[in-house]
Amino acid sequence: LDSGTFKQVKRMLNGLSPVEIAHLLESSPPPSRRALWRLVDKEKEGDILQELPDDIQAQFLRRMDAQEVAHITEGMDADDVADILQQLPDRVIKEVLKAMGEQDRQRIETVLSYDEDTAGGMMDTDTITVRPRFTLDVVLRYLRRHDELPASTDNLIVVNRKDEFLGLLPLSKLLTTDPSITVREVMSTDAEPIDAQLPDTEVANLFERNDWVSAPVVDEDGKVVGRITIDDVVDVIREDADHSLMSMAGLDEEEDTFAPVMRTTPRRAIWLGVNLITAITASAVISIFQDTIDKVVALAVLMPIVASMGGVAGSQTLTVVIRGMALSQVGRHNLGYLLSKEATVGLINGFIWALVMGGIAAYWFQDINLAIIIAAAMVINLLTAATMGALLPVLLRAMKIDPALAGSVALTTVTDVVGFFAFLGLATYFYA
Amino acid sequence: LDSGTFKQVKRMLNGLSPVEIAHLLESSPPPSRRALWRLVDKEKEGDILQELPDDIQAQFLRRMDAQEVAHITEGMDADDVADILQQLPDRVIKEVLKAMGEQDRQRIETVLSYDEDTAGGMMDTDTITVRPRFTLDVVLRYLRRHDELPASTDNLIVVNRKDEFLGLLPLSKLLTTDPSITVREVMSTDAEPIDAQLPDTEVANLFERNDWVSAPVVDEDGKVVGRITIDDVVDVIREDADHSLMSMAGLDEEEDTFAPVMRTTPRRAIWLGVNLITAITASAVISIFQDTIDKVVALAVLMPIVASMGGVAGSQTLTVVIRGMALSQVGRHNLGYLLSKEATVGLINGFIWALVMGGIAAYWFQDINLAIIIAAAMVINLLTAATMGALLPVLLRAMKIDPALAGSVALTTVTDVVGFFAFLGLATYFYA
Repeated sequence: LDSGTFKQVKRMLNGLSPVEIAHLLESSPPPSRRALWRLVDKEKEGDILQELPDDIQAQFLRRMDAQEVAHITEGMDADDVADILQQLPDRVIKEVLKAMGEQDRQRIETVLSYDEDTAGGMMDTDTITVRPRFTLDVVLRYLRRHDELPASTDNLIVVNRKDEFLGLLPLSKLLTTDPSITVREVMSTDAEPIDAQLPDTEVANLFERNDWVSAPVVDEDGKVVGRITIDDVVDVIREDADHSLMSMAGLDEEEDTFAPVMRTTPRRAIWLGVNLITAITASAVISIFQDTIDKVVALAVLMPIVASMGGVAGSQTLTVVIRGMALSQVGRHNLGYLLSKEATVGLINGFIWALVMGGIAAYWFQDINLAIIIAAAMVINLLTAATMGALLPVLLRAMKIDPALAGSVALTTVTDVVGFFAFLGLATYFYA
Repeated sequence: LDSGTFKQVKRMLNGLSPVEIAHLLESSPPPSRRALWRLVDKEKEGDILQELPDDIQAQFLRRMDAQEVAHITEGMDADDVADILQQLPDRVIKEVLKAMGEQDRQRIETVLSYDEDTAGGMMDTDTITVRPRFTLDVVLRYLRRHDELPASTDNLIVVNRKDEFLGLLPLSKLLTTDPSITVREVMSTDAEPIDAQLPDTEVANLFERNDWVSAPVVDEDGKVVGRITIDDVVDVIREDADHSLMSMAGLDEEEDTFAPVMRTTPRRAIWLGVNLITAITASAVISIFQDTIDKVVALAVLMPIVASMGGVAGSQTLTVVIRGMALSQVGRHNLGYLLSKEATVGLINGFIWALVMGGIAAYWFQDINLAIIIAAAMVINLLTAATMGALLPVLLRAMKIDPALAGSVALTTVTDVVGFFAFLGLATYFYA
């Protein structure tokens, strides 16, 4: 690259917004990523970094020293800085905090004292609080002393002398009410503040259900310690939704699409290894019936069909139940209905495709026994698949195992084993 | 139920918020759903209905006449009413609109004139607009004439005499700036309004990237026709994320977890039928090699392993690429890198598990030929699986076929056919 083109590319790149640059970095293979990053203006690095997924953040942070990290995160929201710092070793975090200004350090230490996946870990500390005895006129004059309000401020938080939460003063009320009225008279007290220890998924549920834009966070003493805004909640919703999709293929939701081969290979290898155990288990079942296959080789031709149909039927049920669990729809009170419903669907579909497949097998191999065997095995396996597809995720959750991650492997094992066993077992009985 | 208990249940139920009642209905089997619905207060029905997924909405709406629908949707946001009406036949929609008040009808007809999946279909029509020449003091007095501001109002929309978009006046600016200043001097003009025809997924991207709470919507002439709020965007994000998960199992993202058997069965049956074609294709490949299997029955025992490992490796790549496409990370500029990366990962993992599986086969069947055959087939199939896992979704998208829906079936066909063909083909060559 000659220096003219170089300067032009640099100017174009830095003309983009931090979000656009982050998206460009995410969509680039690692070598271009590093090249692009070197072209980015120093003062934009912090804003870009906070838009990147954990994996890529860590990559860039590894190349910075504590001074640099402290410098680029200056003035950023406390929760975003905390997110970035969590990619670093504890030793480096301490150094970065030491290199920060007193005020920044305090704000960020507050957020860091909570777990990353809780309300405390996702809150900002830039709240505007008012007292109940103020008139709205006083509040309006107080606000006018600010240069601007924190992003996504739709409520002011009403607190007492000890900073304990009392209620919310919506900007909408502030703007539509007679200014001589006091805060106490118009504040809304029906919304509960969020406990700092609440898991982020439940925070997201609260926001979704109540159509909140922001909400106050309190510590165990009821003191207001920060507020959560909808933009951070949207990230949680996106991650939670991605979690089921990615976990069902044994992947992490933060997986970097363009991660280098040497980082991707071992992660994928583990999942393949787990699956190999499943596959060998299925083979072990087949090996029991070697003699039967030796007699009727058509069995070898048809046997994958029964296992495959079971796998598909099971994964449909599994996906519906896992999604239902993620939306907290599935519980003890409706498990009975769900099980009997899925089992019935499995049974009916078992009969439908048993009929079709029986017909095909009879015609293909001109063997009515074979048709009966595959039809019966199909009904058995589809019924099992549907039942286990509904039961397994519930059992796994009760055992504190992530159903999205373990469900599909466990289910495949069941549908393969039952599929081969039913088909070859029936065949052995018929042809013996 | 005696009438005392009945009244108590009814009181408890109606003590819940519409969102909570909607969640309860969603989590209930259809018979309890209908029973609960009958207990709900008439005036709450509209608010509950708008929180329910399409499937369940349609169920309840089928039992109402046009008058009732018009009555319960009175005073609701135009986009929510439009969503509900779209569940009804065109004839009924016309009747409902006729039964509405003039003002409601106009608002809802505006929204209905746009496609459900566009900005126009998700907007509200309750905008507050101001003129650039007003002073902020005038704006403040104007707002005070309202009882309240529309939900999630963080900006007022600045328009000219023809209602054309000029800029935004953030409430935050309004509250922190000297009231004698005019709107023109403080309004922000850097954000573009949203075109009413923009697909909802792109609206969601804009909101996510810019951390918006609300945004104005304009028609083709630049006239402001409404505004979109973050709560409706969150629904789109949730649906889009669910789409990949559900489609990969051949399911619809609006699928009702507790839908009755007779509605679920035919939907699932179609997907099973598609898969049967895949499975029979694989069987046809096996049948080519019947003679070889007849000679070496161990082949029948081991052959599902190669196909299964290919299926898993392929689905990992497929999932990553489909997610990358949903986040619009994958495009022509990085497809080359992605392909070569995934192929390399597939090849390395192919070699790793070929070695392991070769060892197991050699020990299990005391046959070094079998070990070499399965190892070679494993490498071939894992390489194919990874390559096709990356290529297929891109090809399908180019053909305007949903990769999340068609990708997994197409990929399974490939990994089954290649897996069986490579393993049994090599075996035929070795043992011939």
